[in-house]
Amino acid sequence: MQKEVSSGFVEITPTAEIDAKRHGGRAKCLQRLIRLDMPVPRTIALDFGAVHGVSAGDMPDLDQMLTLFGAEPLVSVRPSSEDPDWGGPGAILNIGMNDAVHAKLCKTHGETAANALYLRFIQSYAVHVGRLDPDEFEIFSSPTADALRAALELYEEETDEYFPQDPKEQLAEILRSMARAWEGTTARLLRQAKGAPADAGLGLVVQKMVLGVGQGICGSGVIQFVNGVTGHREIRGRYLCKSQGRDALTEAEDRDVMYLTRDPRGRSIEEVLPENFADLLRYGDLCRTRLREEMEIEFTIENDELFILDAVRVARAERANVRIAVSLAKDKVISREEAVLRIPPRALTELLHSQIDPEGTRDAFSHGIAASPGAATGKIVFNARAAQAMAAQGEDCILVRRETSPEDIRGMHAAKGILTIRGGITSHAAVIARGLGLPCVVGAGDLVLDKKKGKLKAADGREFGEGDVISIDGSVGEALAGAVDMLPPELGDSFQTLMTWADSFRDIGVRANADTPPDARNARMFAAEGIGLCRTEHMFIDDDRLLAMREMIFADHAEDRRAALDRLLPMQRADFTELFEIMQGQPVCIRLFDPPLHEFLPHGREGLRELAEALDLPLRDVERRVAGLREFNPMLGMRGVRLGVTVPEIYDMQARAIFEATIDASNSGAPIVPEIMIPLVSAKREVEIVKARIDAVAAAVRIERSAEFDYRLGVMVETPRAALRAGEIAQHASFMSFGTNDLTQMTYGLSRDDAGRFMGEYVAQGVYEEDPFHMLDADGVGELLQIGADRGRGENADLTLSICGEHGGNPESIRFCRDAGFDYVSCSPFRVPVARLAAAHLAITSPRADNV
Amino acid sequence: MQKEVSSGFVEITPTAEIDAKRHGGRAKCLQRLIRLDMPVPRTIALDFGAVHGVSAGDMPDLDQMLTLFGAEPLVSVRPSSEDPDWGGPGAILNIGMNDAVHAKLCKTHGETAANALYLRFIQSYAVHVGRLDPDEFEIFSSPTADALRAALELYEEETDEYFPQDPKEQLAEILRSMARAWEGTTARLLRQAKGAPADAGLGLVVQKMVLGVGQGICGSGVIQFVNGVTGHREIRGRYLCKSQGRDALTEAEDRDVMYLTRDPRGRSIEEVLPENFADLLRYGDLCRTRLREEMEIEFTIENDELFILDAVRVARAERANVRIAVSLAKDKVISREEAVLRIPPRALTELLHSQIDPEGTRDAFSHGIAASPGAATGKIVFNARAAQAMAAQGEDCILVRRETSPEDIRGMHAAKGILTIRGGITSHAAVIARGLGLPCVVGAGDLVLDKKKGKLKAADGREFGEGDVISIDGSVGEALAGAVDMLPPELGDSFQTLMTWADSFRDIGVRANADTPPDARNARMFAAEGIGLCRTEHMFIDDDRLLAMREMIFADHAEDRRAALDRLLPMQRADFTELFEIMQGQPVCIRLFDPPLHEFLPHGREGLRELAEALDLPLRDVERRVAGLREFNPMLGMRGVRLGVTVPEIYDMQARAIFEATIDASNSGAPIVPEIMIPLVSAKREVEIVKARIDAVAAAVRIERSAEFDYRLGVMVETPRAALRAGEIAQHASFMSFGTNDLTQMTYGLSRDDAGRFMGEYVAQGVYEEDPFHMLDADGVGELLQIGADRGRGENADLTLSICGEHGGNPESIRFCRDAGFDYVSCSPFRVPVARLAAAHLAITSPRADNV
Repeated sequence: MQKEVSSGFVEITPTAEIDAKRHGGRAKCLQRLIRLDMPVPRTIALDFGAVHGVSAGDMPDLDQMLTLFGAEPLVSVRPSSEDPDWGGPGAILNIGMNDAVHAKLCKTHGETAANALYLRFIQSYAVHVGRLDPDEFEIFSSPTADALRAALELYEEETDEYFPQDPKEQLAEILRSMARAWEGTTARLLRQAKGAPADAGLGLVVQKMVLGVGQGICGSGVIQFVNGVTGHREIRGRYLCKSQGRDALTEAEDRDVMYLTRDPRGRSIEEVLPENFADLLRYGDLCRTRLREEMEIEFTIENDELFILDAVRVARAERANVRIAVSLAKDKVISREEAVLRIPPRALTELLHSQIDPEGTRDAFSHGIAASPGAATGKIVFNARAAQAMAAQGEDCILVRRETSPEDIRGMHAAKGILTIRGGITSHAAVIARGLGLPCVVGAGDLVLDKKKGKLKAADGREFGEGDVISIDGSVGEALAGAVDMLPPELGDSFQTLMTWADSFRDIGVRANADTPPDARNARMFAAEGIGLCRTEHMFIDDDRLLAMREMIFADHAEDRRAALDRLLPMQRADFTELFEIMQGQPVCIRLFDPPLHEFLPHGREGLRELAEALDLPLRDVERRVAGLREFNPMLGMRGVRLGVTVPEIYDMQARAIFEATIDASNSGAPIVPEIMIPLVSAKREVEIVKARIDAVAAAVRIERSAEFDYRLGVMVETPRAALRAGEIAQHASFMSFGTNDLTQMTYGLSRDDAGRFMGEYVAQGVYEEDPFHMLDADGVGELLQIGADRGRGENADLTLSICGEHGGNPESIRFCRDAGFDYVSCSPFRVPVARLAAAHLAITSPRADNV
Repeated sequence: MQKEVSSGFVEITPTAEIDAKRHGGRAKCLQRLIRLDMPVPRTIALDFGAVHGVSAGDMPDLDQMLTLFGAEPLVSVRPSSEDPDWGGPGAILNIGMNDAVHAKLCKTHGETAANALYLRFIQSYAVHVGRLDPDEFEIFSSPTADALRAALELYEEETDEYFPQDPKEQLAEILRSMARAWEGTTARLLRQAKGAPADAGLGLVVQKMVLGVGQGICGSGVIQFVNGVTGHREIRGRYLCKSQGRDALTEAEDRDVMYLTRDPRGRSIEEVLPENFADLLRYGDLCRTRLREEMEIEFTIENDELFILDAVRVARAERANVRIAVSLAKDKVISREEAVLRIPPRALTELLHSQIDPEGTRDAFSHGIAASPGAATGKIVFNARAAQAMAAQGEDCILVRRETSPEDIRGMHAAKGILTIRGGITSHAAVIARGLGLPCVVGAGDLVLDKKKGKLKAADGREFGEGDVISIDGSVGEALAGAVDMLPPELGDSFQTLMTWADSFRDIGVRANADTPPDARNARMFAAEGIGLCRTEHMFIDDDRLLAMREMIFADHAEDRRAALDRLLPMQRADFTELFEIMQGQPVCIRLFDPPLHEFLPHGREGLRELAEALDLPLRDVERRVAGLREFNPMLGMRGVRLGVTVPEIYDMQARAIFEATIDASNSGAPIVPEIMIPLVSAKREVEIVKARIDAVAAAVRIERSAEFDYRLGVMVETPRAALRAGEIAQHASFMSFGTNDLTQMTYGLSRDDAGRFMGEYVAQGVYEEDPFHMLDADGVGELLQIGADRGRGENADLTLSICGEHGGNPESIRFCRDAGFDYVSCSPFRVPVARLAAAHLAITSPRADNV
């Protein structure tokens, strides 16, 4: 049956050589519909080369092409790029309309219908080929003879030419216009933003028109068999009598609607044309089973006869995408692997958080950095205390701060969302918010926060005060005035099924970073395989602990320090016991105390006075001590293991708390092997010193409690030097976990808290391809990871390797870590599903040679 | 002649097998004196093994040994370690004295002499062998019969034993006591601190006593032929009649002095014993020419007869050492290579700076870190302005600050020395002071600075106010009350000759870090081969420039920025022109603007108000802008090339100033090829962007001025990432200079400004072997240097490699850089001689295979 018409175009028949990579996705899809015996009007496909040729002035043999469409051909042209997402010029219908055809159609279809067809074509042609002002042609909305005449005259007036009457000329101009539009700069940038390669080609399909107007039942519509927002199976779509193309979706409701399914409000295709309706259902089912996808079908009915013009993948929200993929796999239409692969890992975040309903209205007053996904509505509060107070009254609030610090943590827990004026993607607010799964916008530098007046001022002059309701969209980085419509999280059966399948393929571990019992419960909810990073510093922030902490800091002697720490011990022990119990024997990796001590001291004069009072010291002394602890570059200062070596009582207390909790929690459940991680190591000797002390604490606790327990001691690799010296460090460590946040800071010499000021410009100018705090820098930081991993394993083959920075949940980082032979990645609980899915993708698409 | 007496000891004869590594340096030296036919009394040497055996209870055959010394042997024992600097137990004389010998000596030498000899021995024996209280035996100072009796009784009382009469027993106890003292902990630690290996051995020499008492002219003395402080040739020493050992050096002046040379005050050996005196001169000359060293000779005259007991290298200050080595080489006693090798590079700093006279008194009130060598005396000032005011009045002052910042630079220039309470070896104060060659003590944490009262309070309670005179010793890190005696710098002929010789051997370049014309002049004074690092930020600190700088910072648009910078342009151009002219065509490597902008803004409220006034802006606005520029970790913030990329007008202006200065200065002298260095690079694209703009500026200047010039563009490698990505970065760079200060900070994750708080403890505990800011960390930072060098040269074989951090002048760093194939090192001007000499040492001791 195949007719090779000429080089560059081919009629789409079941056996024609149509290839999506040469003719585009639409051409290929049409061929599939034809193969499934759907009533598709005759269609020919121009391949990428032919279209490119057209833009260069090399027109295919249009006479020959038009011959295929009969004596007085009426055709449409539609774009057919390789991936439908890459866009393309709009469809043009009714090509071939001219005075003669119009006259003939007036007789066969009535004057109104003929006018409408001709008018539509003139408008399209004038705008797309003639480049005339669309607004001027908009006026001809009712298809009268006068309107038609006026349109033709306007065309002549504007172009100094008669409206072309020769179908071949019309088609040639349209093809040329479409080919050139594709190669314009705007179109190229748009499609490249969607991932198209620079040389992406455009195909075109030329299809015989089915008019959708005429004596019998005529019209056009679209139908799909699934809800694009929820993914549930249901018939959706619209049909419009006496219409063409996708009119049904765009024209006003009050025109001649016919419902698809039985409807009390009026006629329906299901009743009026039951056979056509049955065919549509059958075609939908065919698409689903044979094209293995939920398709939206574009159809036209001409004189009771059904034609299928096109079909496209149903546009859908990610939650729908999950349901559809799982459903297809359950029905054995696709494999479980394919279902897993059909869900982009990052898209899962949309399911895990509330989302602003895409169909609602948005009144954004500030644009910042999308720091933690999801959306929230609440009343503005300007400090952590107010957040806690409001939460206690059962009111939702949004915590608005210039930036957050560890003192704000309880307020952050109490708030529904966080908005900060300063900070970047890895600022304190962002990291904590992601950990809590709270929506967060940071770096909203277009806002001015006047703390004294308690006002938040937007760039457009609007002011918001405490108690005013705002919303934040942490997925796009916007703050919005008032409340907005929300879609709730979607963690139902389909999600769970998908994740179970993903885990069955995955071959690298995924743990969660979890500091608190709620974090740990989230970690379990998202099926993390343990805690990869438990930061302990927040445990010293609570009011009752902070004072003991400060006494410890102000102590002059080891003895006094120990006394203050002794008061913290039972609280720490309780912290760990609860974590161990929640995690039910899963590994928990606890990072010893890390931040500089001055983070625990008050800043303002009032705070200092209160502290002096509490410690019964002269204010001067307190001021001097606080000033003495201040640091130029706290990130590079007296923290981490440097504290552990010089103020060893802190780690002693923590180790004791961990071991005692281990015994307590083991009594009540699964045996626990805690993992203790030393932060900020830069030299082997640091590990030796800390290890000796912790071993001694373990020995003491074993004797005191007459109990046995095991534990693992490891190192957080955060400095370039630790990576370089990983060989000797690994001799004393049973695991190494790469803290890629700090490692990135030090490798680049770049503070994550200060990078926000220029990171945007840096990425925009392509200085950095990506924000390295957002996407692991494989070239630089990655090489240090590789060096560290190789040297560490070289000295200690049993060394457990992992990554626990903010990068841990990123698909790119997971690929890197998997390739480098890491055992697991650890990330915020709310990133755990993303990581699990990304890891499954890798296992499916590039299976390990050694996997059995 | 050689008599092998027994295993373990041997008589020292010209042909005996005496080895400094087995018998110690003193034994070897004595053999040389014997070979030179000097009248050395019979001496036997115990080797290391024998002495070690003694301490373990294995005594050599003392009967046999004593036989060598005649019937009633009287001998001395002296230590003989491999290196005399490693110390050892004190000499013990007159072994063999007992009642019988005493009685005999009373007859032959008179009672007083006999008493003196016996008393001395009893005292030595009681203290060193009997471990009795030295103070109790101190009382027997006049050699009467009563004193002798009392001493013997005291000994018996304290030990419950008679004083031993058997010479063999005496000698055995003394050998045992000396052997054990050597193996005690204190002695071991002391000698290890001087570089001795853990298993360093002790030899002993047993020498027949020459009594130095008797009827004729008798006595003992020391003589040397060079001044140990200046190195000038002159006869120095002392002689004391009727004395033994080194009594002449320790006993009071009022005893029986005889001068060495003719002296109006009394008799001299030169007159009384002209032959002996001539012999001493001859022996001195023999030592110099045959032992190839200036020696201090220990001699005794007994009945007009001269005996040479020992000779040791003349103790000397480093300035004397230089003069002596040069003199020996000029006299062809040693080679120039050896003269160069005899001067430890670091010792040169003593010549370059004023030193506190080691013989003066020291009243230290604070101990800090020795941050910049040399000493200074002056009145205390507490701020830079006061320093300038005092300098303007011609008064010397010491600037005392909690820490210094760029605003203090002019005050530092005005001061004679700097003392800071905070900061480490690479703090701002330390770096600047070393650059200026100013004595500096930092981290004097035992001081409390009360700014309000204007008082500096020492730990011992003393208070110092503005105007009080203090001194600082930057070579040892002390602050001293009042003025002290000083030795001036010594840069005379010998120094210059030595440096010329060193340069003739050296095979790696040495440049200076020089920011200002005085720096540059120092660089030339110390024969640096160009400027390896010219920091430009200080050029914006002067009052008239600071305002323009601040206007630039506060400008909202590129245009306003450019206008402010245009005012700075002529000043910058003049800066560079002057530098180029001073350097007379030698290369000058200019680092583009590096520090964060907020360093140029005032801190206090008053400063902000003044700024608001000067800029005609509301105070609020100024405060907000200043707050907006504040950074959490300035070291890792918006500085270096990050400014160059985001605020490109600054580099544009600097490049223009450099190029215009190049043309101006080339007109008046040697053609200049400026080197422009981009700081804080972490990605290749940064270099591309800056390079493109600088090339454009060069092209514009060439056209405007119708002049040709060349320049070289390079990169400062300060981030680990720049080292890792050196391959691609080198494609756009003609040189790479490693900034090891920042590279160390980032590799360790350690701020040099904050490290002071725990670095002392870290080094003390051996966590770090050395302060990595002081000594290049070869393992970690060094690997990054090696990686950077290899990858850079791999892509660009012509790449010039250098190091310009504070480490640049350290001998260890120079070795590293030379091994890694670097072209040059750059360091503070005052370190340049050290570096030149260290490089010469390397070239002499490990010549390069490819050297021709």
